[in-house]
Amino acid sequence: MKKIRTGIVGYGNIGRGTEKAIRESSDFELMAILTRRTPDELTIDTPSALKVHVDDMLSLKNKVDVMILCGGSATDLPVQGPQFAKHFITVDSYDNHAKIPEYFNAMNKASQDAGLISVISAGWDPGLFSMNRVLAQAVLPHGSGCTFWGKGVSQGHSDAIRRIDGVEAAIQYTIPIATAIEKARKGEGALLTTREKHLRECFVVAREGFDKSEIENKIKTMPHYFADYDTVVHFISKDEFEKNHTGMSHGGFVIHSGKTNGSRQTMEFSLNLYNNSEFTASVLITFARAAYRYHKEGRTGALTVLDIPLAYLSSESEEKLRNELL
Amino acid sequence: MKKIRTGIVGYGNIGRGTEKAIRESSDFELMAILTRRTPDELTIDTPSALKVHVDDMLSLKNKVDVMILCGGSATDLPVQGPQFAKHFITVDSYDNHAKIPEYFNAMNKASQDAGLISVISAGWDPGLFSMNRVLAQAVLPHGSGCTFWGKGVSQGHSDAIRRIDGVEAAIQYTIPIATAIEKARKGEGALLTTREKHLRECFVVAREGFDKSEIENKIKTMPHYFADYDTVVHFISKDEFEKNHTGMSHGGFVIHSGKTNGSRQTMEFSLNLYNNSEFTASVLITFARAAYRYHKEGRTGALTVLDIPLAYLSSESEEKLRNELL
Repeated sequence: MKKIRTGIVGYGNIGRGTEKAIRESSDFELMAILTRRTPDELTIDTPSALKVHVDDMLSLKNKVDVMILCGGSATDLPVQGPQFAKHFITVDSYDNHAKIPEYFNAMNKASQDAGLISVISAGWDPGLFSMNRVLAQAVLPHGSGCTFWGKGVSQGHSDAIRRIDGVEAAIQYTIPIATAIEKARKGEGALLTTREKHLRECFVVAREGFDKSEIENKIKTMPHYFADYDTVVHFISKDEFEKNHTGMSHGGFVIHSGKTNGSRQTMEFSLNLYNNSEFTASVLITFARAAYRYHKEGRTGALTVLDIPLAYLSSESEEKLRNELL
Repeated sequence: MKKIRTGIVGYGNIGRGTEKAIRESSDFELMAILTRRTPDELTIDTPSALKVHVDDMLSLKNKVDVMILCGGSATDLPVQGPQFAKHFITVDSYDNHAKIPEYFNAMNKASQDAGLISVISAGWDPGLFSMNRVLAQAVLPHGSGCTFWGKGVSQGHSDAIRRIDGVEAAIQYTIPIATAIEKARKGEGALLTTREKHLRECFVVAREGFDKSEIENKIKTMPHYFADYDTVVHFISKDEFEKNHTGMSHGGFVIHSGKTNGSRQTMEFSLNLYNNSEFTASVLITFARAAYRYHKEGRTGALTVLDIPLAYLSSESEEKLRNELL
């Protein structure tokens, strides 16, 4: 079987996770890792892969089938996405929910003009969670859905704490509140407030000479990030931080409960992830397989996880899936 | 919006559930209920719907867009399925796993010859559970999946008990074993034996003059149905049976746990259903919507739940789904 020749754009946590996922998938081959850094200074795990500067992406035009875009959603993807989609099949995990329509339109135009395919927002949320939200709402339209995240590390909230004066290191765990999960399972999810659904727990290493109660107050009152939540702040030593708080576990629940003719019916999808980035990378690879197949069928434009049949995600034939997994 | 004109073939529990689901879905209209009984003797809940004998299905040819086939998988669907698929778009919840490939081929031929669409096996297992099995195996190929059913009523096992001499009434609950579920979440699902995964609990009303211990022994040693399981048998009064054991609750879990580069990642989908038949009916309606749309796009042949993008299941536009649920 001809392997799908793949490029990775951006070599952070998700990029490195994608490199590992490709190594474990027999239908993919890693051709190149693209970076904005000096390529020669990059230490990568795949000796056969080329190290290429993003500005030289066109040199890979006949060597790479699919580019997995592993940059950040805030500033990288809005620029890189359409640039790459003009020349390659692309897959990304763009996760700025509010700006998805805008990003979709930009990617759709670039891919259509090029006669190519781009799959956007193919992680776990947006991604697998979105798939379950749509499925549940379609099957139980007279119901209410609720998404919980965690327990897991929020990179955005951890960063926000680190920007406070006097903070040396910090991590923030998002924790779904058990009583709220139970309410969602009973169909009462729509009534829950932000504060009732999640707790925010922070572990902070303070620099010497700074007032801890002042740092704690700055965290708890920070608008958008913490003000609407119950937040717990623990001050710990650098040693304890390094020992216990460097993981990347995450997960969550999509719970939808509705009624058919008065009978309560509940659907639930959950993830329990030891390594968030590696899981996102696995999802990206799965949708890269589908994007490649769509392109071979002559289709063009941007797609989301909602547009792709599940059989396209698998490396097995449809016949085998029907025989063994249906 | 033009409504999808729908027929229901077979007026048992799922047929009646489908009638209710159509009433609650604004994009469907129930045109006819088809039966093998004398149509005039049927008491239905939708005054505007025609009551038609299955042998007269051709009289509905220009009145019905989609036929929801609600007959049994053992003897009804293998015959009715291809007959109806020659003349109508069809959707069914065919659930004889071992014979799905054969049924698929028969339905595919009938639908292709007619230039129509048939969606087969669109319930919850096969159906929503199959979708989650395929999704999980695609994302975590280095892992192991496990499906648990229950706690819920197995109609087949209840019937098997009722066929024993001296049994007046009986119900069988399939109960997933909690320790097995925990093992599956840790990735040890593949090692579990049949006996370790599910317990079978039976509530039996014995006729006077029959030896209860003999009935119990016949149940526990019944090949295929009970011999491979730990089975608990309770003898109860007819009154208690009528009072506590006439429900149709069911549900289950699809658990898949795998590793990415050594990190354990677990995906789980579960259903908690108060009314099994009504939920199956809701799933059928959801896929009927997709079948109708596929037909309008000019596609033909048999499809399963693995072949249909999630956006096709929803009555909302793709743009709205991207904006609100992605």
